[in-house]
Order: sequence, then structure tokens, then C-alpha cells
Amino acid sequence: MSRPLYVASPILPKLDDLRPYLEGIWDRRMLTNGGPLHDELEEALSRHLGIPTAMLFNNGTIALMTALRMFDLPSGGEVITTPLTFAATAHAISWNGLAPVFADVSPDDLTLDPASVEAAITPKTSAILAVHVYGTVCDLDALQDIATRHGLPLIYDAAHAFGTTVSGRPIGTFGDASVFSFHATKLFHTFEGGLLATNREEDRQTIYYLRNFGIKNEEEVVGIGINGKMNELQAMIGLLNLPQVEDERQTRAKLRQNYKSFLSDLPGIRLQPDQPGVSNSEQYFALQIDPEKFGRTRDDVYEALKSMDIFARKYFHPICTDFEPYRGYPIHSVWPQPAVDLVKTRVLCLPFHGGVEEQDIAQIRAVFLS
Amino acid sequence: MSRPLYVASPILPKLDDLRPYLEGIWDRRMLTNGGPLHDELEEALSRHLGIPTAMLFNNGTIALMTALRMFDLPSGGEVITTPLTFAATAHAISWNGLAPVFADVSPDDLTLDPASVEAAITPKTSAILAVHVYGTVCDLDALQDIATRHGLPLIYDAAHAFGTTVSGRPIGTFGDASVFSFHATKLFHTFEGGLLATNREEDRQTIYYLRNFGIKNEEEVVGIGINGKMNELQAMIGLLNLPQVEDERQTRAKLRQNYKSFLSDLPGIRLQPDQPGVSNSEQYFALQIDPEKFGRTRDDVYEALKSMDIFARKYFHPICTDFEPYRGYPIHSVWPQPAVDLVKTRVLCLPFHGGVEEQDIAQIRAVFLS
Repeated sequence: MSRPLYVASPILPKLDDLRPYLEGIWDRRMLTNGGPLHDELEEALSRHLGIPTAMLFNNGTIALMTALRMFDLPSGGEVITTPLTFAATAHAISWNGLAPVFADVSPDDLTLDPASVEAAITPKTSAILAVHVYGTVCDLDALQDIATRHGLPLIYDAAHAFGTTVSGRPIGTFGDASVFSFHATKLFHTFEGGLLATNREEDRQTIYYLRNFGIKNEEEVVGIGINGKMNELQAMIGLLNLPQVEDERQTRAKLRQNYKSFLSDLPGIRLQPDQPGVSNSEQYFALQIDPEKFGRTRDDVYEALKSMDIFARKYFHPICTDFEPYRGYPIHSVWPQPAVDLVKTRVLCLPFHGGVEEQDIAQIRAVFLS
Repeated sequence: MSRPLYVASPILPKLDDLRPYLEGIWDRRMLTNGGPLHDELEEALSRHLGIPTAMLFNNGTIALMTALRMFDLPSGGEVITTPLTFAATAHAISWNGLAPVFADVSPDDLTLDPASVEAAITPKTSAILAVHVYGTVCDLDALQDIATRHGLPLIYDAAHAFGTTVSGRPIGTFGDASVFSFHATKLFHTFEGGLLATNREEDRQTIYYLRNFGIKNEEEVVGIGINGKMNELQAMIGLLNLPQVEDERQTRAKLRQNYKSFLSDLPGIRLQPDQPGVSNSEQYFALQIDPEKFGRTRDDVYEALKSMDIFARKYFHPICTDFEPYRGYPIHSVWPQPAVDLVKTRVLCLPFHGGVEEQDIAQIRAVFLS
């Protein structure tokens, strides 16, 4: 048994495999600013993810702030997003001087609800930022339709959807931009890291400038930019981790089947839906617990697991509108009561990585079946 | 001879010394979010730099954006800064939704000129962001006096002033906050990295939240925050580089004396002034070339060096008001013509690091004396 057992545990390359990469870095003394490992990883990820423009960042939040900056949104412009997400999604909007506006999630799959998005649109709406939460893919067609009709950029937070495809089409090619996180908790990681991806080759130059202070050359700075640069150590980790991802994904796919074998038919337990044609990223295993039908609350289960040193996560509780800076922000919804208000009391993510052993699963099973 | 010879070349630890640190990271599987190496480096730097609150960041720009965010400046508020600085200084202001206002530099030492700052103050002024350019210390008393009289936060960009002291007092303890860069080009570096330092213990909590999404604990997000986290690989490099800094600084101090031995009395060559009581950070060796008195322009010298694969830098040319996003911005000055307009045509930074050899110096000397 692996204790304490967390929701995430990072894959890591073999230590000995680092040596030739480190020797190369030490020989070149080129440590950042687009070194050869950085460029090699960028190309490898562009191929692996099937996205024409895939640009590395030091982390996903800076990539997200850069994505929002790509579209020259007016100061104070409203960006419609989901409250059921990691804090970074809302904060990237706020820090950029924009106003997050929260719309409800679909009770079916917990992604941003298109009808509720439509209900949240005002003359100040300037973009939509949707999240493929738990790797569950948003309603791509409906969101694109709204974005197109209202002339709004559509940005996806794809932090949970590394490698996902929809009927064979890579997830990063939908909308106007997608952002991936390579934080240590992610299936593919670079300790800290991120990626900003778009379907348009011509965005490469724009993102390149935004990522490195708008510097064109020694004599020209052509725009406002940030420091979003990934260094060579992060890139080294990425190059060594990438070949391991498929194995880890398959291990997690088996773990998912294992969890489903005892959870699928349990009264009061609701799993994220299987989406036809969608290859699962295997980032998270999320479920909802209906306390009346299940007989215990989500928090009961959380505590029962915790007492065995198994740390499930109440992802995402609290939701963004529970955070101090967004408290009192309305959740625009087409339902009388926002679906997310119930969801946040029910959702739980189970340990989901290659370090979860049969005995761990047996103990988790026992907690749910007891 | 080391060719090509650049202005900067990073110190690096011995590769073998990485191994025990890497083994520790691999054993713990704690890769970021304030790992033990991160915390150890933070404490070591707090001691080394003599600053009560010294918080690590993924890079200096994110640290600077966080410093600006600490003071709750109103959207669109004006921040007075120098145009003679790296692009990050102005961009951090702009990206944060604030308005950079440029004031002239002192012709004596090229730091932000207090009288010109005073002339730039309007009712919308919300902060002063001064730069210890080339490690030359700003007029600390005069700037603090202006800041105090007008009730403005005073922030220092100390990217060039690692380890500088003024009459024994650490540079990072002046003003309301100081930001250091640990980019690969810096005396002390972590590939990419930065530090936000203040003289007040009570800022620790504020910066801690701003750096990591405002997260207080699993149940509370108490403010808007960014991802400014330094990971364990960067922290490892920092821990191994820190003990090497003093040697590198002494090597550079000798190089400075060497350069001065043939440049100090050259007609038309002006060096940065020695500042009484100031311990030099030895980050850059900057000089100005008066073309009329010297007989050649700065660009002539730059090209002559370049022809020998010696890459001096016209730091900082272009200046911020030459950049596309700030073109046409006035430079507030108490002189009829801004001093910086002349300075930017004259300033040159010479190769300045432990890899500069006697033969290199001889060749640089020959270019200046020819």
C-alpha cells in the first residue's frame, strides 16, 4: 500500500537518463530563452498533441494570461467562465484587468453550460473561457456557435485534457486558443510548465512576442510582453517524461475500469459520462455523491478515506464564487438554482495515478461498499 | 580566448554535485509548491541578502508584477519609472493594468532622477518604480522623501544589485519592496528565477498568497493570485550556485579594475561612478562614449568588438520610449532635453564575467586605445 495516498503522483524519468541532457546544457551554457531542449520539446508536443501552434510556458497560469492577452480585450471586459474550476482560471482573467463572469455548469457533464453562457452575455462580454473539467470535453459545437454569433474569442482551459481527441481531432485545435498545464499534478508534467496552443500558424509570432517581453530583436520591442519562458531544466524533464505518458495513461485507464467496476451501479454515485468519440485524457477520476440515495455525504466518504491516509480531493470545492475575491458574484444559470451549487457539495476526485495499488483500490472499494 | 564572448556567462555548479539533490527530489516526489529545497533557498537568500522577507519567484518579471499588486493600486494608476531599463520594468506596469510614466535619469549616475520624478507627479500617480541600473544605487534618500511626501509606494527593481549594501545596509531593505532577477544572465541565477523582498515581516503572508493563487488552505482562497512558484530544480541550482557567488564577484571586481586601468583616463570615456559606502554587485560594467571627445561613436566600438566575435551590448538602447507600445510617451525631465536621449546613444556594456580572459581584455583594450 502507498500511504499517504494522494489524488496525484508525478511520473518521473530515471535519474540516470538525466545525465546526457544535463551534460549538454552544461556544455552549451544556454540555460533558457529558447534553448535547444526547449525547441525540441515544443516540436515534440506539437506533434504529440497534433496542434500546429504549440508554445511552451513556465506555467499554465502565465500561458492562460497570455492567451487572454492575445485578443486585445478591452480593460474591464467581461469574460464568461465556469465557477467549477481551479482558482487560476478566474484569477488569470482578474489579473489581466478583465472581469470574470460566472455561468453555470451542465448538470450532465459539469462543463460550462452553453445555455447559461448565452444568458450571461452582456454588451461588455469580451470572451468565453471554458474548461474541459476532469478531462470531460465541453459542448464544443454549442460554445463555438455562441462565440461565432456574438463575435467572441473562445478560449479553452485544457489543463485536464492532455492528449484528448474528439473523433480523432486533437482537443487543442478547437476554439481560438487552448491552454495546457504541465504542473507536477498533471499526467504530463515539467515540474511547473504550460502550453498555449492554437490552430493557426500565424499566432506563433504573436505568442512568441507576448511570451518574451515583445522582443523582436536587439533593436526592437514590438509589443507589451511578459516573461513566460520555460527553462532548459523543465524542457529536459518534458522530453524524458513524454515517452512515458502513454504507459501511465494506460495504467490509469485500467484503474478507471477498476473503479467503475464497483462504482458504476452504486445507488447515489454518479460518474462523469463516457463521451462518444472522445479519447479520455485520464487526468482525474471524479464522481458525485448524492447523500440521500447513497446514505452518506461526500464529506463522510472524504473523512473515511482520510482516516486511512487516503487523501481524496473535493475538486472543486470551494468553487470560485466561494472565494473571497468573487464572493457575491452571481452564477448565471438557466435553472432556478445553479446546478453547480449542488455539484460542489457532491464532487470527489479519487487517487488516480500509476502508484495506486490493488490493495489501495480494495480499501477504497470497502469504504464505498460499507 | 573565449569566443564568441558575450556580456554575460552563467556560473554553474559541478554536475556531480547535483546528484544528491536530484536523488532527494526523486525520493520525495515533491516537485514544486514550496518543496524543502525551495524553502531552504529562501532562508539562505534571506540571510545572504540580509532581508527579513525574501520570497522566491519563477522569474523576476512575475515578482515585479506581484510587487506592484501588493499595494492595491487603482486601475490605470500612473507608475513613474525610468526609460533606461530592461523592457520587463515597463511591461510589468502595463500588464498589471497600470500606466507607465517615464521620468529622466540623472546624467551623473544614470539612475532615476528624483527632480524629474517630482516633475512627473500628477493626481493619478500611484507608485514609483526605480531601477538600480547596472548595480548603481539610486538616490535612495531623495526618492524616499518624494514617496513619503506624496504617499506613494516606492518599489525598486534590483535585478542588477544582488548583494549590494549601502553603508552596510542591504539594498533590499530600502523602499517598500525590491525585486531581484535570477535569470541566467545574472551574477546569482537559478536558470530563470526571481525574488520579491521587503523590510516588513508582515508582508510575507501577503506575498505568499499573491504567489500561489491566493490559496490559504484547501477550503479557502482569500485573494487574487498568480502562479509565481519556483520549482525544486530551480531551487537546487540556487542552493549550489549561492556558495560560488562570492568567488565570481571577486573575479569580476578584478576585471573591473582591469578595465578601469585603461578606460578611466581615456578622453571621451565615462564610467559609472564609484559610490561611497556602496559595495558593488558586479553585475555589469557599463560605460558611456562621447563621440566628439573619443573620436569614435559607441556604435563604432560595438562593431569593432563584434568583428572579433566580442559581443558587447548597447544596454539600454533602445530605451522604453523607443519601443512600439511606448513610442511617443513623454520623458518627464527637469532638463531642456532629457539626459537619457544622449545616454542611450553612448552607453555600452562590456563582457563581464569569470570567463573573460587576459587575452580577451588585451583585445578589448586594443580596440579602445587604437
